[in-house]
Amino acid sequence: MSDFSHSNDSELLALNAQVLADPEEFEHWDKLAQAAQAQEGGLNRNSSPQAIASTRDVYDRFLTRFPLFFGYWKKYADLEFAIAGTEAADMVYERGIASIGISVDLWQNYCNFKTETNHDLDMIRELFERGAESVGLDFLGHLFWDKYLEFEERLNADDRVFSILERIIQIPMHQYARYFERYHSMAAKRPIAELAPVSVVARLREEVIQQLGPKAGNAAEVDRELRVLIDTYHMDIFNRTQAETTKRWTYEQEIKRPYYHVTELDEAQLSNWRNYLDFEESEGNYARIKFLYERCLVTAANYDEFWLRYARWMMSQGEKTEEVRNIYQRASCIFVPISQPTVRLWYAKFEEALKHPDVAGDILDAILMMIPGHLETILALTNLHRRSRGLEAAIQTLQMFISSMELSPYVRGALVAEWARLVADISGKPDEARDIFAGHSNQYLDCRPFWLKWFFFEVSQPAQDEMEQKKHYRRVKAVYDAVRQRSNLQGAAVKDLTTYYLAYLQERGPADAMVEVIQLDKEVNGPVSVQKRSSRRDTDNGGGTVSGQMLLENGLAGASMHEGPLGQMLGTTPVQAGVNGEVAGY
Amino acid sequence: MSDFSHSNDSELLALNAQVLADPEEFEHWDKLAQAAQAQEGGLNRNSSPQAIASTRDVYDRFLTRFPLFFGYWKKYADLEFAIAGTEAADMVYERGIASIGISVDLWQNYCNFKTETNHDLDMIRELFERGAESVGLDFLGHLFWDKYLEFEERLNADDRVFSILERIIQIPMHQYARYFERYHSMAAKRPIAELAPVSVVARLREEVIQQLGPKAGNAAEVDRELRVLIDTYHMDIFNRTQAETTKRWTYEQEIKRPYYHVTELDEAQLSNWRNYLDFEESEGNYARIKFLYERCLVTAANYDEFWLRYARWMMSQGEKTEEVRNIYQRASCIFVPISQPTVRLWYAKFEEALKHPDVAGDILDAILMMIPGHLETILALTNLHRRSRGLEAAIQTLQMFISSMELSPYVRGALVAEWARLVADISGKPDEARDIFAGHSNQYLDCRPFWLKWFFFEVSQPAQDEMEQKKHYRRVKAVYDAVRQRSNLQGAAVKDLTTYYLAYLQERGPADAMVEVIQLDKEVNGPVSVQKRSSRRDTDNGGGTVSGQMLLENGLAGASMHEGPLGQMLGTTPVQAGVNGEVAGY
Repeated sequence: MSDFSHSNDSELLALNAQVLADPEEFEHWDKLAQAAQAQEGGLNRNSSPQAIASTRDVYDRFLTRFPLFFGYWKKYADLEFAIAGTEAADMVYERGIASIGISVDLWQNYCNFKTETNHDLDMIRELFERGAESVGLDFLGHLFWDKYLEFEERLNADDRVFSILERIIQIPMHQYARYFERYHSMAAKRPIAELAPVSVVARLREEVIQQLGPKAGNAAEVDRELRVLIDTYHMDIFNRTQAETTKRWTYEQEIKRPYYHVTELDEAQLSNWRNYLDFEESEGNYARIKFLYERCLVTAANYDEFWLRYARWMMSQGEKTEEVRNIYQRASCIFVPISQPTVRLWYAKFEEALKHPDVAGDILDAILMMIPGHLETILALTNLHRRSRGLEAAIQTLQMFISSMELSPYVRGALVAEWARLVADISGKPDEARDIFAGHSNQYLDCRPFWLKWFFFEVSQPAQDEMEQKKHYRRVKAVYDAVRQRSNLQGAAVKDLTTYYLAYLQERGPADAMVEVIQLDKEVNGPVSVQKRSSRRDTDNGGGTVSGQMLLENGLAGASMHEGPLGQMLGTTPVQAGVNGEVAGY
Repeated sequence: MSDFSHSNDSELLALNAQVLADPEEFEHWDKLAQAAQAQEGGLNRNSSPQAIASTRDVYDRFLTRFPLFFGYWKKYADLEFAIAGTEAADMVYERGIASIGISVDLWQNYCNFKTETNHDLDMIRELFERGAESVGLDFLGHLFWDKYLEFEERLNADDRVFSILERIIQIPMHQYARYFERYHSMAAKRPIAELAPVSVVARLREEVIQQLGPKAGNAAEVDRELRVLIDTYHMDIFNRTQAETTKRWTYEQEIKRPYYHVTELDEAQLSNWRNYLDFEESEGNYARIKFLYERCLVTAANYDEFWLRYARWMMSQGEKTEEVRNIYQRASCIFVPISQPTVRLWYAKFEEALKHPDVAGDILDAILMMIPGHLETILALTNLHRRSRGLEAAIQTLQMFISSMELSPYVRGALVAEWARLVADISGKPDEARDIFAGHSNQYLDCRPFWLKWFFFEVSQPAQDEMEQKKHYRRVKAVYDAVRQRSNLQGAAVKDLTTYYLAYLQERGPADAMVEVIQLDKEVNGPVSVQKRSSRRDTDNGGGTVSGQMLLENGLAGASMHEGPLGQMLGTTPVQAGVNGEVAGY
């Protein structure tokens, strides 16, 4: 990457330092680009190689970060034209439309540039046709179409102008009426063959001949009558296009910001896009829906909601694996900030579903490079390894993270709980799982998920007979008491857990459970003045005093049992996340 | 109950009809009471027995419903005085203070009445003393104390006046300063013995004698000095009382409505009471705290929050079983509307904890008399019977409710799920539980808790080896597919369940789980246009087509397994209730 070491322009150096310090702040980029371009009294063919190289570098870095700013692609192209000529400018335009191919403005500029700098009509037409493909459906497409028509008019290619108009009048857009009027008046002077598809003309001609009967011999008469019918045929097209335009008008007029910008969109804008997409999807035209998603994702590029929706919709359109991958890639690698890994997590699931576990792994690793402690991602990686490489590999993955001192005790505690879950759930060894919990309890005294999941692990143990019920109760109680007596959990966390424990006592507790219920409710839910962290009664009752020692005994005691994953689910379903905030860790 | 059949006063009859129709509307009562009292040109000794009886009946019914309206106790007493004399009026006053013993106004009126109608000074004093006990601590207690002092003054009982003042000046109240001034000026003329407790006087006298040394022989001199010291002693009392008053001033001035009214209190009022109680509790004076709760529960009588808090606090004050019971009873039977059964549910738990399961049962039955379908209460009753009479009794209770056609299918479905839970949890027979679910599934196609709990029942089953894991997955999937293909659950409910199922697939699903995850996510979380109730893939995959038949086979298949109560807990913890609304049923 070339820098400004050649330059002694202090402002330039300062601006460059700014963008390096804060590459998300696009205004710094804007200033830097202007300043770079102004080097040596304004860049031109004769500017120094260093000045040119450094300026290109600014634009390249800028547009890599903000590829949706079509205006800067234009500026960049103009610059290239000034310093290196047509082909260099062409290259920039091509890169631009590769980044934001639905920008009417950019296509308009590109085609303009082409008509002015190129004299090969076919090449120019080819470009206009690519433009028509890319932005012809835009509600404000007239900005592009007018250029196209203007080009053909200058060549007096009436037939081409007419056939372009014939395409435009099918498209619902802001200026639909203007184009139709023009088409209509032109039609009068065009040969009948051009006025409608062959089959339509043939059919209508038949009708006319039927009508005229004997007079059908008069060719002029027939043509006159035929043009009348074709007029009605055109009016039908107009009415249909008008109706389609009206349907979309309400949504279009609500779009306050059609272009990309770093600032957020307000809720009204977002819900307008949701509704517009719902509508267009209900109309069921693949090309139009895709185009609308692309437009939406220019202005809402930073909202993973729409990327996820786009991917889900695309998946339902038959064999579209490549399109879906492309959506996930653009969302993951270019637009949605890494601080919102949701899209990437789904991208990984998608690749795994396509039997590419390694790609999925790379995607997850990439997230963890940026946010190393992201619990959900670590859990996703663990279970990916479980599915693709087996339980042992999964546990090794977990242990690697657990032993990484970069991670907070909070995250490591949650991972220990996951380790215990795998041991219990997948290899069906609850006693081993209990040992893992008990053996780590002193390290994670303030890790809520650790204790919550241990609690639910014990709760979810089965119990066949009276005796097992008693043991079950002692174990659940032992964990609960440990939370109140030994852990450093916050009041709110203890309150939540108490709610679960009270429900447990109500549903599975022993005959005298209510004595404990009343007692606990008073101590935990009572006014501050009577709240207790723990009390003698707790430890007198059932479980006995709960020392780490006893927990360990509990950990080691008891016949082999099995469990369900529910305690863990409780911690990992987004729904739950809403409830027990950190439990889910996201 | 006497009625107005004797009366031909149409207005009276109309008003009576109104209160019978809507006994909660206190204004109807007010009008009726006035009208009744106005019968025959205003009731008096000579009014007809019917008129008198019917009017008494109005007051009795009115004050049974609204015992906290002290003003009407006064009116009623005046009426009785007019028609039946002193003793009858006394009786009403006694009933009044039994209902709202902390009403300064009522005590003031009662004592007034006593002084005017009774000439036995001891009896009057006795009443004033009872009043002092009941409302002496009130921040606006001066309304009462002034009456008391006035009474003794009229008798020129300066010693009594002075000793009353000595009590008052200890109490933080609005008018503390006025009383102290009066006490202070009186003190000058009272014999030293009356100015402070014997021990204090003795101690101070010692000090004086020390000071004076030889001059201590002069008694007058000693007394003069002694009074000086006693003055300082009194000033300390004043300063202490002033400080205590100031502490409470902020809370007292926030109390906008000290009396009871049917309208609601705004949040500011409620939180002021919470803070005031916190403060008074932190001061730790039992009598003052209790009195403040009683005051709070006059104005906030309809808020079970404060009744529950009062009970929890009282429980923590040593041996107070009777006091606690009294709190629950007043809350349950008089104040909190039956439509809010929470207090009653806790009352039942309290009695059960005291080894009175039958009383607990009666309390729960009483709730169900008023709101027969109250799920939480039925579940409480069931588990009460489980604890006190054993599993069979509990299941019989459930079956009785399940077969009651008065109850909604929603409630009955939830009860069937509870039945299955008991069978699985308590007697450890998951296969039987599965039969119960499968056997009832067609009856409860739109009962969310039924399906949610069936789902979690299967999820929470253990699985030891690969083979069992596969079976486990097939069963969980079968229930999930049935929810989407057969049940009539709402979109939101299906979405929630899908979230759980996706988490299950992530944590315990087979090697190719992500294929299903991607597919389901698309169908359930995708835009409306691509959402599906169910799809071919679902039924092709794993579980095969899920007919009721197959569910039944599932229900009957498989080796004996055990489960944890978590699926059920998930439905019964308030925390969860926040998430899956009706699941918890409350």
